[in-house]
Amino acid sequence: MGLAIRPLAATDRDRMAEALRACAVFTSEEVRVALEMIDQGIAGGPDGDYWLLMADVDGCGVGYVCVGPTPLTRSTWHLYWICVHPSAQGRGVGRCLQAAAEAFVIARGGERLLLETSSTPVYAAARAFYERAGYAVVGRVTDFYRPGDDCIMYCKAFTRSSRASHQS
Amino acid sequence: MGLAIRPLAATDRDRMAEALRACAVFTSEEVRVALEMIDQGIAGGPDGDYWLLMADVDGCGVGYVCVGPTPLTRSTWHLYWICVHPSAQGRGVGRCLQAAAEAFVIARGGERLLLETSSTPVYAAARAFYERAGYAVVGRVTDFYRPGDDCIMYCKAFTRSSRASHQS
Repeated sequence: MGLAIRPLAATDRDRMAEALRACAVFTSEEVRVALEMIDQGIAGGPDGDYWLLMADVDGCGVGYVCVGPTPLTRSTWHLYWICVHPSAQGRGVGRCLQAAAEAFVIARGGERLLLETSSTPVYAAARAFYERAGYAVVGRVTDFYRPGDDCIMYCKAFTRSSRASHQS
Repeated sequence: MGLAIRPLAATDRDRMAEALRACAVFTSEEVRVALEMIDQGIAGGPDGDYWLLMADVDGCGVGYVCVGPTPLTRSTWHLYWICVHPSAQGRGVGRCLQAAAEAFVIARGGERLLLETSSTPVYAAARAFYERAGYAVVGRVTDFYRPGDDCIMYCKAFTRSSRASHQS
């Protein structure tokens, strides 16, 4: 399997829309917002709010990650979306996208990456994924998304050594 | 003292810009973002992202609060800004704006109000204010704003009885 990470291009948009819809975990409203952020990321200049990295497997786009600097902070970034087409899941693509997002943030001076996910069973694999990747729970809001569906906030701080290893 | 709460109007913008600058706690970047949200709130229609309530004392605008529905949630709202001109502080205007914001959110079906504030000493009064108003800490991100300046997340859930008392 040949895996490559590159910036997401306008020509990738339709394929990623299909990937978002194929991931049954996202609601139609979530897909709509994710596509808005893709459009803003594609349009954005050097100080954009959203940055998009694409994963190709054997030359074919299978997933992407969206990060951006958190407003009003000096060096905190948010991971907004990570999506891998179900047909390409289970092969480490998500892990590579996550690592690439962290390297991107560190390269731009970011010192921590925050993300929010759901407490529901369908997100158990996502939570385990973030915990394995070194993310710690920093907050929880009961019934945030809807009754019975809490928001769990995760954060990973980049130490000097992790910043150095990404730069070397 | 005659205190009244009403929707913020376009003609209030300059006065609130002055109030934001007079509150020495806000950085120039924070003032810029707060004014962008005021502009969006003024322009926004019935499904706007930001809603603005104004406090008048003896017919003169002295402070405002900005709230909005949290994207991708069913009934969670954010309190983004609350600002009272220093010349009008210490007279319960902030408390009334907070209560009015909660009543507004409840009237629109909101079931909880989230807010973020800083861990620094200059925000100690703000944190005590929220805690007295029934907000509970639900998260904390170390060094979020800048080194030594954590983000503290507060949430207040509205029970059926508090919703009923606001509606009566």
